[in-house]
Amino acid sequence: MTDYRTLRVALLGAGAVGSQVADLLLKHGDELADRAGAKLELAGIAVRDLDARRDVDLPRELFTTDADTLIVGSDIVIELMGGIEPARTQVLHAIASGADVVTANKALLATHGSEVFEAADQVGAEVYYEAAAAGAIPIIRPLRDSLAGDRVVRIMGIVNGTTNYILDRMDTEGADFGDVLAQAQALGYAEADPTADVEGYDAAQKAAILASLAFHTTVPLDAVHREGITSVDAAMIESARHAGYVIKLLAVCERLAGENGGGESISVRVYPALVERTHPLASVHGANNAVFVQAEAAGDLMFYGAGAGGVQTASAVLGDVVSAARRHIAGGIGVGESTRANLPAVPIGHVITRYQITLEVDDQPGVLATVAGILSEGRVSIATVEQTVIEQTPDADDSAAATGSATGAGSARLVIGTHKAREQDLSETVERLAASGVVERVVSVLRVEGN
Amino acid sequence: MTDYRTLRVALLGAGAVGSQVADLLLKHGDELADRAGAKLELAGIAVRDLDARRDVDLPRELFTTDADTLIVGSDIVIELMGGIEPARTQVLHAIASGADVVTANKALLATHGSEVFEAADQVGAEVYYEAAAAGAIPIIRPLRDSLAGDRVVRIMGIVNGTTNYILDRMDTEGADFGDVLAQAQALGYAEADPTADVEGYDAAQKAAILASLAFHTTVPLDAVHREGITSVDAAMIESARHAGYVIKLLAVCERLAGENGGGESISVRVYPALVERTHPLASVHGANNAVFVQAEAAGDLMFYGAGAGGVQTASAVLGDVVSAARRHIAGGIGVGESTRANLPAVPIGHVITRYQITLEVDDQPGVLATVAGILSEGRVSIATVEQTVIEQTPDADDSAAATGSATGAGSARLVIGTHKAREQDLSETVERLAASGVVERVVSVLRVEGN
Repeated sequence: MTDYRTLRVALLGAGAVGSQVADLLLKHGDELADRAGAKLELAGIAVRDLDARRDVDLPRELFTTDADTLIVGSDIVIELMGGIEPARTQVLHAIASGADVVTANKALLATHGSEVFEAADQVGAEVYYEAAAAGAIPIIRPLRDSLAGDRVVRIMGIVNGTTNYILDRMDTEGADFGDVLAQAQALGYAEADPTADVEGYDAAQKAAILASLAFHTTVPLDAVHREGITSVDAAMIESARHAGYVIKLLAVCERLAGENGGGESISVRVYPALVERTHPLASVHGANNAVFVQAEAAGDLMFYGAGAGGVQTASAVLGDVVSAARRHIAGGIGVGESTRANLPAVPIGHVITRYQITLEVDDQPGVLATVAGILSEGRVSIATVEQTVIEQTPDADDSAAATGSATGAGSARLVIGTHKAREQDLSETVERLAASGVVERVVSVLRVEGN
Repeated sequence: MTDYRTLRVALLGAGAVGSQVADLLLKHGDELADRAGAKLELAGIAVRDLDARRDVDLPRELFTTDADTLIVGSDIVIELMGGIEPARTQVLHAIASGADVVTANKALLATHGSEVFEAADQVGAEVYYEAAAAGAIPIIRPLRDSLAGDRVVRIMGIVNGTTNYILDRMDTEGADFGDVLAQAQALGYAEADPTADVEGYDAAQKAAILASLAFHTTVPLDAVHREGITSVDAAMIESARHAGYVIKLLAVCERLAGENGGGESISVRVYPALVERTHPLASVHGANNAVFVQAEAAGDLMFYGAGAGGVQTASAVLGDVVSAARRHIAGGIGVGESTRANLPAVPIGHVITRYQITLEVDDQPGVLATVAGILSEGRVSIATVEQTVIEQTPDADDSAAATGSATGAGSARLVIGTHKAREQDLSETVERLAASGVVERVVSVLRVEGN
């Protein structure tokens, strides 16, 4: 056995991911030493409650409530507490103490990333966060390193497993959001309070991290436009299917060409969108994640895998630990984050994409002409229109029946696919449609993403 | 503009990839400098023939035929000549001169990788080769770094675009190998001499590189079992489709558990295999590549993208150049390759997988019992059997009709799906079947890969 130098590793947090990281560090110590070129000694595990139940049986003597003392003298600090505080303070403490940091904390990086990375730059330390963007899927190194010589044009990511699970079940079973959410909670795929997932907060944090890497620009969380999936219902999914689409919660990070002589900008947004069923992202089922990347030279790439899960995420964390150890052995300062492009993020109104607008209208002559006229005035060009008469029997379409017009004249449903339009033009046009006499109800407006 | 240190970059080779690399280096110089933290100065391009036509218009004064002189004093040497010599000599010269090396040369790494990596270790240099395994798909860093804390169990890769293009066209059009190959050659998807692709040599080189990374073990090229796709015909593809499979040329790298108290070993093999149509690899169409990775902790991952192409591969090369530049700026020695696991590679006979055996047999009572008996004796367990009578009209099945038995007793086709069996048992059993009185012809034996 080679005589390796020993590196002291401190673990902060022993939840679903932390306990698996500790277990694998202890179980595969010799193998990890061979790969890292250094023995990784788990010096201790800082937790709030020494007596809490853990997913994995770990030696009791490793646990401590004193994170501060544990951090001092450590070569590598793994932060898996989650949340902003005390994680932020501990991470800054670790960096100031001369340690490299490995973290899976997307909330921390999306809100205080600049502070953390700058602190690391000051002392030549490195911050690793492969587990923060898409769980077990290796996406940080590809974006940060492999594509560093290319220009990323667009990222479309399914980066939240809970919402993909819910939308996938709704799609395959025709079930409603509430029912599937309840099932997901019972199965452990969704939290008791599902807000962070279903309202897109989790995806928005990951989008900020991915966009920062892809565009070499610091992207603050409040530059990310965010919509959740709570308004997606069975009828929308059925209508999407009919048109050859599936609904996915997408994190879209896009490079926008300069307009009117201005420079390039970026758009970062999270919302449920229509994706063609033939697109590789459409076949991402269950709680899986995938990140689809389009780059100028490399073309289309996709990275697929488990986006969450304790042991899966632990794999990404340990990969970072080995990288940190190799760097310690090789010497040299941290290379820091590449954020010198400084591209401005535009508001959602500037985004240009395609849309599918579903309207309930009076079923009488001239309505389509009126609708088409409003769209044309609003600079929204129509690609496809499908008109269907709404049956007035309650079984046929509950949602339509619930709002059924009392006029007796009958209603029709218009599903309009647009060419590319500017979001601001589109939303103003939809407001005018809603206010027009002929539109009874705007059923849904969905963006269409993909080529 | 930041005042960056200048790094001198030498390019060896100006073919499809090299000319794109030079073009992008010149075109995106400022952007690359911001990302690398160093100005990348293209010092020169070494070529054999100064007057050869290039894919891209490049400044004539950059070209030289004197690679040796160009290399001396360079910080980063990009080797895109291909082939073993003079690439090997130049790469070793670059390392000895203190440069980091970026190469896309799979033939060189698969045959002389140890020599190159050891030379780099000696002087603390680094060798980057993202473009050598799957073109533009970032797979090296995920395997080398992101999964360094995990244990890779199996890789199944579609790593040759030409053969995937051919098999995909055969599958979608029912066309024969020769016709599609001729089309692929006309379209530039296949070389005039297609041997390296269709006989699996290219995929075998990539398999050796992927297995070395995944299993932290030096895998020599002659440890890779290799079969090409020239024996795949339209009837095999149709039969595969009927059974719910598609035929793909797979590079399989597998970790085998220790048997009889022995340690772990690995198997690395390239052959056309049956893949279930629901498997993510089945939806990899055209000349695209994909690498499906199964790891103990991370679970299933897939990396998808363009496996070849000048500008696509240039993206991977430039990513490596930026990495090398960052390392130069950060200081420190190269971390070297992780090959300390030293797992032995077993011969193909030790591989355990499932098989589909297609036989033409006499259509008479007792034949199935005889066949089943031979399989059972050979420790090959039957999972499924489908028997069909072969029509004796020439139109129905040309290949069957061509070998039509003259006995007049009629023939039947048996398609046997096996449970997992040892390759050696299977091949001996197939020999016994062929020699038995009841089997007229062994039509095909294909491995089934996937779960």
